[in-house]
Amino acid sequence: MSSNRDIDTLIDMMAKLPGLGPRSARRAVLHLIAKRELKLTPLADLMQIVAATARECGNCGNIGTSETCDICLSEKRANGQICVVEDVADLWAMERAGAFKGRYHVLGGTLSALDQVGPDELRIPGLVARIPAEGITEVILALNATVDGQTTAHYIADQIESMVSLTSLAKGVPIGGELDYLDDGTITAALSARKAF
Amino acid sequence: MSSNRDIDTLIDMMAKLPGLGPRSARRAVLHLIAKRELKLTPLADLMQIVAATARECGNCGNIGTSETCDICLSEKRANGQICVVEDVADLWAMERAGAFKGRYHVLGGTLSALDQVGPDELRIPGLVARIPAEGITEVILALNATVDGQTTAHYIADQIESMVSLTSLAKGVPIGGELDYLDDGTITAALSARKAF
Repeated sequence: MSSNRDIDTLIDMMAKLPGLGPRSARRAVLHLIAKRELKLTPLADLMQIVAATARECGNCGNIGTSETCDICLSEKRANGQICVVEDVADLWAMERAGAFKGRYHVLGGTLSALDQVGPDELRIPGLVARIPAEGITEVILALNATVDGQTTAHYIADQIESMVSLTSLAKGVPIGGELDYLDDGTITAALSARKAF
Repeated sequence: MSSNRDIDTLIDMMAKLPGLGPRSARRAVLHLIAKRELKLTPLADLMQIVAATARECGNCGNIGTSETCDICLSEKRANGQICVVEDVADLWAMERAGAFKGRYHVLGGTLSALDQVGPDELRIPGLVARIPAEGITEVILALNATVDGQTTAHYIADQIESMVSLTSLAKGVPIGGELDYLDDGTITAALSARKAF
């Protein structure tokens, strides 16, 4: 790499970020150094600010800068509905779609015997507590359609199905999807959930 | 994205780095925020240090932390040889290969009429000045095998071929390369530069 220790360390740290590797880290760092006043210093400053202010919402687990996040505090969100997601990236994906007007609950992962992740690691007790506290009538399980995601969904359903109406995201053909490229499981799910045309 | 302005701005800045996009920037920022003491703060600190200390070597254009870079100052490097590269990433690639023991000269790009890049923008006068000043006997043109790279190589050759011995990197089949996957130009170059077996 370079002959300089700080620059090498910076490249190493960038290379360990998800989605980057050594080559893209080198390119990014060289780009930042070439425009250090315009890009590197402002980026470092902003990272300091975010490191100092970012925190998890004590209620739902979303990331923001206050003790309770904007979505939990907002009076414009529909009361009575909670959408359960695995992590903050999934919450942001739901928000980008803009179709859900209730509030969220971020589990922080999925149950996993292998990784020793149990219900207490996952903010599941917090979800159970919110149902009577906030007068929740519907919980929408928006977990990923993976084995771990669905196992976690079934566990949560066991805990709360006596307390609220439980729904989950529909499974089927994605918009723009072509049957020839879909896996058998998706086609089977889409067929068994077929609707009147 | 998130509902927080600082976090959104940080994601936007990361997304504009070469090799990243909105999705990988979101993943990287969420990863950094999740481990803010361990990763985000040290990364921001190191960026501040590099922003304050990184500078171009006044002699060759390499990036380091002193007015003249370690390679230019090192007494272990062979005197008399300069390897001309387009940018710092190319210099680092040559150093990783470890085959060249002389010093470097980083042009900072290639000549381009379209982008209005002339010889003065490219540290070419500096190269010409170094030849008598450092007693250079061989200049190795290690520019990329692209049209712009080769145009620039020919321009430099015109300027200095009366002063030094000029060479360029060999063109041919890359190590591990399969003929069926190579372009016609490479095969033609490798054939015309064939060597006794």
